Amino acid sequence: MATDQVPPIADEIPTPVPEAAAVAGDDDAVHAADRGYAEPVVDVAALRSLLDGRYREVRDLVRANLAEHAQVLLDAEQMTTSEFRDRVRDVVVMMAESGQTGMGFPTEHGGGGDIGASVAAFETLAYGDLSVLVKVGVQFGLFGGAILQLGTQHHHDAYLADLVTGRTMGCFAMTETGHGSNVQALGTVATYDAEAQEFVITTPDDVSRKDYIGNAAAHAELAVVFAQLEVPSEEGVERHGVHAFVVPIREGGRVLDGVRIEDCGPKMGLDGVDNGRLWFDHVRVPRTALLNQFAEVTPEGRYLSPIDNPNKRFFTMLGTLVQGRVCVGGAGINAAKVALTIATRYADRRRQFEAVSPDEEQVLLDYGMHQRRLLPLLARTYALHFAQEVVAGQLHEVFSGPGPTEPGSDEHARRMLESRAAGTKALGTWHATRTIQECREACGGAGYLSENRFAALKADTDVFTTFEGDNHVLLQLVAKGLLTDYAGEFEDMDQLGMARFVAGLAVETVVERTAVHKLVQSVRDLLPGGDRWDQEAGLLDPAYQLAMLRFREEHMIGGVARRLKRGIDQGANPGAVFSRVQDHVIAAARAHTERLVLEAFVAKVAALPDGDLKVALNLLCDLHALATIEADRAWFMEHGRLSSARSKAISREVNALCRKVRPLAVDLVDAFGVPEEMLRSEELIG
Amino acid sequence: MATDQVPPIADEIPTPVPEAAAVAGDDDAVHAADRGYAEPVVDVAALRSLLDGRYREVRDLVRANLAEHAQVLLDAEQMTTSEFRDRVRDVVVMMAESGQTGMGFPTEHGGGGDIGASVAAFETLAYGDLSVLVKVGVQFGLFGGAILQLGTQHHHDAYLADLVTGRTMGCFAMTETGHGSNVQALGTVATYDAEAQEFVITTPDDVSRKDYIGNAAAHAELAVVFAQLEVPSEEGVERHGVHAFVVPIREGGRVLDGVRIEDCGPKMGLDGVDNGRLWFDHVRVPRTALLNQFAEVTPEGRYLSPIDNPNKRFFTMLGTLVQGRVCVGGAGINAAKVALTIATRYADRRRQFEAVSPDEEQVLLDYGMHQRRLLPLLARTYALHFAQEVVAGQLHEVFSGPGPTEPGSDEHARRMLESRAAGTKALGTWHATRTIQECREACGGAGYLSENRFAALKADTDVFTTFEGDNHVLLQLVAKGLLTDYAGEFEDMDQLGMARFVAGLAVETVVERTAVHKLVQSVRDLLPGGDRWDQEAGLLDPAYQLAMLRFREEHMIGGVARRLKRGIDQGANPGAVFSRVQDHVIAAARAHTERLVLEAFVAKVAALPDGDLKVALNLLCDLHALATIEADRAWFMEHGRLSSARSKAISREVNALCRKVRPLAVDLVDAFGVPEEMLRSEELIG
Repeated sequence: MATDQVPPIADEIPTPVPEAAAVAGDDDAVHAADRGYAEPVVDVAALRSLLDGRYREVRDLVRANLAEHAQVLLDAEQMTTSEFRDRVRDVVVMMAESGQTGMGFPTEHGGGGDIGASVAAFETLAYGDLSVLVKVGVQFGLFGGAILQLGTQHHHDAYLADLVTGRTMGCFAMTETGHGSNVQALGTVATYDAEAQEFVITTPDDVSRKDYIGNAAAHAELAVVFAQLEVPSEEGVERHGVHAFVVPIREGGRVLDGVRIEDCGPKMGLDGVDNGRLWFDHVRVPRTALLNQFAEVTPEGRYLSPIDNPNKRFFTMLGTLVQGRVCVGGAGINAAKVALTIATRYADRRRQFEAVSPDEEQVLLDYGMHQRRLLPLLARTYALHFAQEVVAGQLHEVFSGPGPTEPGSDEHARRMLESRAAGTKALGTWHATRTIQECREACGGAGYLSENRFAALKADTDVFTTFEGDNHVLLQLVAKGLLTDYAGEFEDMDQLGMARFVAGLAVETVVERTAVHKLVQSVRDLLPGGDRWDQEAGLLDPAYQLAMLRFREEHMIGGVARRLKRGIDQGANPGAVFSRVQDHVIAAARAHTERLVLEAFVAKVAALPDGDLKVALNLLCDLHALATIEADRAWFMEHGRLSSARSKAISREVNALCRKVRPLAVDLVDAFGVPEEMLRSEELIG
Repeated sequence: MATDQVPPIADEIPTPVPEAAAVAGDDDAVHAADRGYAEPVVDVAALRSLLDGRYREVRDLVRANLAEHAQVLLDAEQMTTSEFRDRVRDVVVMMAESGQTGMGFPTEHGGGGDIGASVAAFETLAYGDLSVLVKVGVQFGLFGGAILQLGTQHHHDAYLADLVTGRTMGCFAMTETGHGSNVQALGTVATYDAEAQEFVITTPDDVSRKDYIGNAAAHAELAVVFAQLEVPSEEGVERHGVHAFVVPIREGGRVLDGVRIEDCGPKMGLDGVDNGRLWFDHVRVPRTALLNQFAEVTPEGRYLSPIDNPNKRFFTMLGTLVQGRVCVGGAGINAAKVALTIATRYADRRRQFEAVSPDEEQVLLDYGMHQRRLLPLLARTYALHFAQEVVAGQLHEVFSGPGPTEPGSDEHARRMLESRAAGTKALGTWHATRTIQECREACGGAGYLSENRFAALKADTDVFTTFEGDNHVLLQLVAKGLLTDYAGEFEDMDQLGMARFVAGLAVETVVERTAVHKLVQSVRDLLPGGDRWDQEAGLLDPAYQLAMLRFREEHMIGGVARRLKRGIDQGANPGAVFSRVQDHVIAAARAHTERLVLEAFVAKVAALPDGDLKVALNLLCDLHALATIEADRAWFMEHGRLSSARSKAISREVNALCRKVRPLAVDLVDAFGVPEEMLRSEELIG
């Protein structure tokens, strides 16, 4: 190798160096820090155990279930849509018997009483067929979650035991054709009829039909319907905003009177999920059908709620459903693992072109470009895995404690969790889309065949970036939390209100209230060089890497605040101002989440005992950190935090780290523990 | 609007300015150049005519055929794979009757005798179902093209008339399981038997089976088989490299003896194309089955060729098949147009969230972020369209002239064409993947339904980045042309040879021989400021934009040459050196192609008469140019061609251009002239 034959140069370049010197340090340089480097041996079992974490037994149970029902991957290709839907339902019910899908429900209703376990189980399910995953998500997460979180004892007693086993199937009827992201503006109406003590559910127009509702087209007997609650009174009709109601829609397979159901028709993927549309024509349900955890209508028609502010009430309700977002983010990350496992193993054995020797073609993963394509994605998958572990842990903590209206509830922790879940979901699902695409291309024409999994992975995960919150809308929500220090109604997406709120504060106030502000302040103490910290620190120093991401985050938040403020101070329409800075808003939210992701990875590695595993994960963590900085190095240069020479040095270091990770790559994907049966790809990976 | 309320600032920032000043120029600034700006009115019909160009009648014929057979889009969802394959074949044959698929064949064999027309027809077909497109490509492009280009009069007389009508279906059996990119290393063998005057075709092992062969699983009666030609002689077996043979594989639907055919099974998309695998067990074909345009075996077994060098012979043969690459690139660009038409029209009517007014939700395309997501892709689609027009025109010129072994053949023009076709195909197909994905996400959950086209567009186009040459391999080929000034055997992908060749030259020699070198030299004369040209020129000056891309290209080529040279001079293995600089190699090829694309767009706009159309296309061209520079602004900063203040100014200008393009956006997509029947998406776009 060339590395043996060129003189070593210093690892870091403390100050800008002339072009010639920078070039001299190019690609084939050996870093000073490498001289003591010994390639670590990865203990795959130990690494897998570390990744599986606290819930390794739960994950192994799901792996076993997946392997047992591996035939479903073939059924997805071979059955008609209608057959496959039934097949998926049957698999879901069989898996429910093992307890894996009910772990988040109370033990007294047949559940496992452990929220963290339920997330772990769901994430692991993403190694298998994703129609099964989404059907589980709809039945136990959305439908079951709504009954659990929004309902009270009465509803729990009536429904939980049967839904936990899958005896009763249900759907979650929130989204309408006209409103997906802006759910406060739903059109479906529920009017209280005091005389009959019933709610009357009505779809007023076609854009208010419920749309894309999983489980609705074929299987659900019950629907949790979100509708505008109207209570007639002597003074007219009182409107109380969106509430949820349990509405029977089928009985013994027959659609009930007043309900109209239409199939959404063929989709890009997820053929085993029966998405449908629902219309309600004056459908009557008893007063007790209102899921009344956060609001109640008395028999005589009085509206009562422990939360006075209607916005706050609505977003508190929605906030209790955050688990769905946490789960989808984790599923996206795990789907990316499946793709990476196949593409990495293939690249480790597939040869093409005589490169190093005229007699033998070279293995793909020994090509520099191929390493560049796959290995930063592998590092990022690890980073997101550990970030997901943190958010799932926070979910478990918050939801194992008191409810939002109970004494001791920590509202700030709930909002932080919602923000973190939103950001991790967005980054995790975009990562899945990108990684699966790159892995498909890296497997060439073979990657196009269904037997090699990419077809299903691509088609099925595509909607992850949209459902459980459109990713761009979610990042706006993250930004709003940052800008308002979680002070407003967190999920209230009224941009007018947000823009005005921020404009009312001094920019310094916005910045100083952010969580990152104190972290940035401390950078100068932690790193050498004072104000020149960014020039003198080592590229592989995690304190430097984190400082860069923290600086970016704080600067971007300040920039958004400044832009909003200036526009509004000048008398412009707050909405127009918001639209113009929207790309900065999204960038700030992304920067914030990237910082959280890197912090999670750095903290995980730091806590490991010395040894080969730590060395290997350190390589990945460095690769992830520097690839993240590299991807946005233009911004860092524009903002004076990266000289052009140092920027180039980062790119060289990313290449060097790719070369070091390369011999470990197969072990690193094997540690994900994707069951062999789920990989298929016999011809690709042997 | 805020634009009325802040003082205008200068358009360009000649020298780095402090942060505060840069911020003052942010988002809501009015550019000095804008003061005379009047929004153009786009004459959609005139723009469509401009886009359709010389072959507008051919394109309209294809549009009419697509509309007539629009049912095939639904059939793709509703039929079984087997039914749909037959259906697609029938549609292809019906379209052939109109003459649209045979335009590239000689008139004496029932063709249209116009290569440019055949490319235009194929490109337009990409507005419709892509199984039909690919089936057409296989039958008339690959199979028919091989007979036409590699065969001689005998083969033309025997096959062309029947294949032009689709009476005889054929396939193109080049790729093997073991070799897709490195086709010189194919394993299939054709041994000449002088006694019988026959070739014996054999598949020696399973990795040498022909794989992914379109038309093979169900419909083809003939295969053009690429195999290693072996001619036994008294001294032993002479090996002459890969040659093409016409081999019957089916008769009346029955697979012939000695041939084994297997279905490739379910794929991600293109369900209507019957991809299969082929094995040959001592299949005998007459001596005349050799497609003998470039080589001949005499009855007694003497090998004759007008091209002595076997490498050169092989790549000359391959070079005659370049039309396939040109066609796939154009198809990718046109598939992107379909996606953009749907997403842009949707974004122009879909409302979500009260942003500007508390009483009405805002149209998606009025959001800054939504503009950022769609409009640079729209501008790039226009740029690629005009670049494709150039490469298709060059193809027409070259292939309407003398053949490669005929007097007057311009070998250099052929190699330039092959390079340009490779680069445009790579950029065009990656653009399709990226654009379709972004458009799907921009249409939310609705984008996931098959009726809205994205499902098919995504699944069917995915393999475009792989077939007709893997995009990364194609870019390496482009780079090799640049580095060797098209001196070597152009398509010879032997990296050892290339690395050694480049290492043998002075870096200056490599750079000075590139086409871009003289263009860069002239920059100082064209632009103000001499060596400071990049600081003083206007951002909207096309000379500046082109100079930036030319500078990047030249610098990158020099960088690759320097790196290769240094590594090899130090005695490292050339293959290992190549692997290490491979990312630079790919980047240089991409930079080269990006420059060609921008040049094509700038030239097209410059040639237009003054008027609204020119104003509108100028906006798009500026948006494309600046978005391209912005995307790689880190590189320009690293290499001293962009100050941080100017870099930020470019991002602001991209935003400003997006706002100017926004009111024209629907007209700009309507001008693509995608037939309404091909858009479907009734609920999305009304």
